[in-house]
Amino acid sequence: MSFADHIRRCNNYDPAGAVPLVAGDQRIGWLRRDNAAALARFTRVFAVAAERVDLLASGDADAVSAAVDEVVEALVVDGRVPKWRNETFDVMPRWGDQPIFRLDRGAVPFFGVRAYGVHLNGYRREDGLLSLWIGQRAPDKRVDPNKLDNLVAGGIGNGHGAAATLAKEADEEAAIPAGLIRRAVPVGAMTYRMETPIGIRDDVMFVYDLEVPDDFAPQNRDGEIVRFELMAMDAVLDRIRTTEDFKFNVNLVILDFALRHGLLRPDEPGYLDLANGLHRSLD
Amino acid sequence: MSFADHIRRCNNYDPAGAVPLVAGDQRIGWLRRDNAAALARFTRVFAVAAERVDLLASGDADAVSAAVDEVVEALVVDGRVPKWRNETFDVMPRWGDQPIFRLDRGAVPFFGVRAYGVHLNGYRREDGLLSLWIGQRAPDKRVDPNKLDNLVAGGIGNGHGAAATLAKEADEEAAIPAGLIRRAVPVGAMTYRMETPIGIRDDVMFVYDLEVPDDFAPQNRDGEIVRFELMAMDAVLDRIRTTEDFKFNVNLVILDFALRHGLLRPDEPGYLDLANGLHRSLD
Repeated sequence: MSFADHIRRCNNYDPAGAVPLVAGDQRIGWLRRDNAAALARFTRVFAVAAERVDLLASGDADAVSAAVDEVVEALVVDGRVPKWRNETFDVMPRWGDQPIFRLDRGAVPFFGVRAYGVHLNGYRREDGLLSLWIGQRAPDKRVDPNKLDNLVAGGIGNGHGAAATLAKEADEEAAIPAGLIRRAVPVGAMTYRMETPIGIRDDVMFVYDLEVPDDFAPQNRDGEIVRFELMAMDAVLDRIRTTEDFKFNVNLVILDFALRHGLLRPDEPGYLDLANGLHRSLD
Repeated sequence: MSFADHIRRCNNYDPAGAVPLVAGDQRIGWLRRDNAAALARFTRVFAVAAERVDLLASGDADAVSAAVDEVVEALVVDGRVPKWRNETFDVMPRWGDQPIFRLDRGAVPFFGVRAYGVHLNGYRREDGLLSLWIGQRAPDKRVDPNKLDNLVAGGIGNGHGAAATLAKEADEEAAIPAGLIRRAVPVGAMTYRMETPIGIRDDVMFVYDLEVPDDFAPQNRDGEIVRFELMAMDAVLDRIRTTEDFKFNVNLVILDFALRHGLLRPDEPGYLDLANGLHRSLD
């Protein structure tokens, strides 16, 4: 692996293999062609054509959610959607828009709707050298079990904003006190689009940096992280360069951290592909 | 103007109006169709077809540069290229590649070849509040005279890297001591593609942040900046939101600074379009 390989892996989306999912005149997802075909039998909810799928269900978000839920339930029975996560994400054409419906998290990649999450770089600076608090994911996590992770990360569930999600996850995942997490600095957003066995991940990560005091040590409360380790940035970057030890998208969050903190240099080969590759166009 | 308007203005490139300039099997520029047509008479140097222009001149960078220079000289006579700038940029398919030839800076947008520059945010932090050193461009600058600018900015001339260009411009434009500019932190790169009267600007800006001490005050040496002012970030952002007082691309550099330093919030409308819009795909 090189730095660029991690970015390529998160952006292996194949446009030729997908058709747009459209609500009214707005695209709200990307359906892999076999997933689009699997929706053809739900004629009250979706209209499946060769090059697009239209959402037919109408009404307020509750009504549309109920109609789509019935379809998702059937897809779970078919084994096309792995399981209910009992957590729903808002489906909206663009960040900040009113949601058209709510979708079970497990079905999000099936429909290729955009999902939003927060990631926190918890760092310390000693004698000018940076280190990062790194977590190890529990062995029973559905995505990337046992892999290394940011200090805090989580998806933005329906009705929640980025800041509220960060505060909640910071408490559950790392027991960061409320007074400390308030000092987290929002530092931008990253985007990627990736093929998965279920469908297409079209992800946005809102990124925060938090300088933590020397006497802070994270403690997991929700069982999703089995241990935390403070790692020197040199070691972190070496490990990203040479292994797949980190969760697939966490590599990108840490590369962005390295870029913003001057740990990579514009005159090094590949710098520009990295700086640019972390931001896929929103279309 | 809104924040997003500044990004749109820098990205008003119209792909339908341009054809690729190709060297061997690599695209090295985007020619507006009328510019492509104007190259048809230089049959020893360019092959102009309906949907592409091929560079025919061959040999080492010196030989190709000499052949293209003759064409540029004729374009200056025709009034299609405004004037010789007596400063050349490397033309290369990608950053870090060997240059194929050197091109007079004045002709760069005519051929739509990618140009690289450095921009420095010189900032102070007092009681948690950020302020930026802002320059005002001289009235005789060809691009955006009298407009507000970063503390330091400049194009990367042939054979120079980003770091060397920053050090040179920091000395000439703002008399920043060598010991201070060495502390500048590279924090990423931004990209945009813009229509201009001459052709297409396909620009990359390598961005640096430098926290300057309280007793530092910039002094211009090269006549390109007429005055400097330390401005509170609140006032800078207000001015960007409501005016076109800043040089067109400097708006983007400062919006990126605001994003990275937590002055904009993910839950605000438009945040994501901003965070993403500062990074146009490199194609």
